[in-house]
Amino acid sequence: MKDFTFYNPTKVEFGKDKENLIGSYMAPYGVKKALLVYGSERIKASGLFDRVAKSLGENGIEFVTLSGIKSNPVISKAREGVRIAKENSVDAVLAVGGGSVLDTAKVIAAGAVYDGDVWDLCSYKKYPDAALKIFDILTLSATGSEMNASAVITNEETTEKFGFSSPAAFPAVSVINPELQETVTNVYLAYSGVDILSHCMDLYFTASYIPEMTANHIENIIRTVIRTTDVLLKNPGDYEARSEFAWAAAQALNRTTFAGVEGNRYDTHLIEHSLSALYDVPHGAGLAVVYPAWMNWHLPMNPTRYEQFARNTFGLQTAEEGIEALTNWFVSIGAPVKLEQVHIDKDKIEEIASHIYRTIEMARMQSLYPKETIVELLNRM
Amino acid sequence: MKDFTFYNPTKVEFGKDKENLIGSYMAPYGVKKALLVYGSERIKASGLFDRVAKSLGENGIEFVTLSGIKSNPVISKAREGVRIAKENSVDAVLAVGGGSVLDTAKVIAAGAVYDGDVWDLCSYKKYPDAALKIFDILTLSATGSEMNASAVITNEETTEKFGFSSPAAFPAVSVINPELQETVTNVYLAYSGVDILSHCMDLYFTASYIPEMTANHIENIIRTVIRTTDVLLKNPGDYEARSEFAWAAAQALNRTTFAGVEGNRYDTHLIEHSLSALYDVPHGAGLAVVYPAWMNWHLPMNPTRYEQFARNTFGLQTAEEGIEALTNWFVSIGAPVKLEQVHIDKDKIEEIASHIYRTIEMARMQSLYPKETIVELLNRM
Repeated sequence: MKDFTFYNPTKVEFGKDKENLIGSYMAPYGVKKALLVYGSERIKASGLFDRVAKSLGENGIEFVTLSGIKSNPVISKAREGVRIAKENSVDAVLAVGGGSVLDTAKVIAAGAVYDGDVWDLCSYKKYPDAALKIFDILTLSATGSEMNASAVITNEETTEKFGFSSPAAFPAVSVINPELQETVTNVYLAYSGVDILSHCMDLYFTASYIPEMTANHIENIIRTVIRTTDVLLKNPGDYEARSEFAWAAAQALNRTTFAGVEGNRYDTHLIEHSLSALYDVPHGAGLAVVYPAWMNWHLPMNPTRYEQFARNTFGLQTAEEGIEALTNWFVSIGAPVKLEQVHIDKDKIEEIASHIYRTIEMARMQSLYPKETIVELLNRM
Repeated sequence: MKDFTFYNPTKVEFGKDKENLIGSYMAPYGVKKALLVYGSERIKASGLFDRVAKSLGENGIEFVTLSGIKSNPVISKAREGVRIAKENSVDAVLAVGGGSVLDTAKVIAAGAVYDGDVWDLCSYKKYPDAALKIFDILTLSATGSEMNASAVITNEETTEKFGFSSPAAFPAVSVINPELQETVTNVYLAYSGVDILSHCMDLYFTASYIPEMTANHIENIIRTVIRTTDVLLKNPGDYEARSEFAWAAAQALNRTTFAGVEGNRYDTHLIEHSLSALYDVPHGAGLAVVYPAWMNWHLPMNPTRYEQFARNTFGLQTAEEGIEALTNWFVSIGAPVKLEQVHIDKDKIEEIASHIYRTIEMARMQSLYPKETIVELLNRM
């Protein structure tokens, strides 16, 4: 194994009804006043908001709110949250929602203890080495943000989708009650499944080195996501599948998949970010479009790994069969695999390629992805 | 998955030469004076002691020492450590050694902030809710203590082998440099392999419920231990195998194997503890003796799981084949599988059974293990 540091101090409270105890999870950290961040008012209709408010009240925790967080979260909302957090001197941020709400909460938590514009912290201008305590009740498992130190957010003015990674951004406690995710639509379940797989596969296919135990760990997560997504699309109430799906999502980006790994990159994520930022394509849908084209292009660079993928995740023999099986699986769960399916015309390719290239430059990957390669990839999508 | 809490704040610094940075890992926790706990003076001959002392000095950390910790560590040594820690007002304990040294260090760290006798904390009289900061440089991977909140120790006067589990006992930072373990003898490597497997198998075979993803995770650790032990017995210098072995050991008891599991017990550990406590049998050797007899006796209670074990770890079909393969593997690596191989006469069985029964009573498992069952198990060993 290559040298590594493993550190993940997030406490995960996993299971039924645990959101009703959120106040008791926060109180030991000395929280007196929190900013409650959420997406739509649906959490009021479902009763979730009231149950959270009750538990906070029972534990002597006051709160103020910020709502209206949408998927592909934006920096303007985080700025609003930072203002509210500072004006109300809150000492914690509580996210109730999916990855977009949680990432916004992380950015707010870091921004609330920073004097300048919070975008500085997301655009590599200033490292966010401190933050308010972060808590969350997860209502959609996909991004893995509930068990890691990262946040991603879009600047609507510049259409840049950046973020940060800092130990200060680990949630102190993440509540994962799979039952809260039963109302996720099949479409979003499919997108989430693709997102989780991509967190595994970006690393798995690009790494120059993966220890066998770590590779097998990643394959276990991939198999779990495929198996449980298939069950859930037919039976959204299957708690067993719902809970394994949720735990797989957390595992996929909690650094266990990085143990002893070298040379991994985030190629498809970097490419997809432009589709989300420019056309507001859901992240998981964008990834499903990028992946088949990218895998077929990338295969010659790591043929042994693709063969192992085919064997250990689908029980197939050749690399090509594995890629085909994954593409077919995307189609079978209703994920788009072509640009036209997310309503992007081929005549936009030059514009998108330029946008992607800016991200590629930031990541210093120009030699791997000269502009003509990006255009070629987009043409295959 | 059943409800669970996952929490593991230990930072693992894994890789070559990392022990030379131990002072820099401790300094951020405000450590000014540490108690350095170790086993034999071999760490002086090897230069490890000097390198640790140098790094501590460079980071302004003073230290006092406690040496002479042996395997199956004893409470008298921990009492000595507590006295030194209190007299010198140390604010951290640094273990340099294997699981016995680390467990002693954990007990000392808890005892140093407790007013009564430290055995109170190990014998369920008083819960150890606080401790000095704990750090370690691991020289033998087996017990998994480097990434968990537990410690086990023997009271020589009462021959009781008890311990505790408390969040206060998580090491703050564990340094795992697989190269430091290259000098472990083949005999101890074999015992360590058995110990790690038993951490996985106790849970795997006894749990009334294991989610498929968690079961596959456990099987991955088991396969890794078997594969890497075989490599290392032939080539102790194989860094790749050495490092996967070490990471597997940490994974086996860092709570990842417990995710969503219900009803697991530690049957073979409870039984083996008496062999260690009464006859000073190395823990891993004792486990190798207990396991074959126990599995054959236990098989009818969980036949499906034994079949899955055979299939997913050895690629075999039937439960019986799996048990036979594991027993043969123990023999092949030089582990004892009979009491006589650890020099225990059959005429001691009544005495041992009584001792085991006391432990079984403490664990409230009398209905599963009436005394005649224990005698029967011992007769099969």
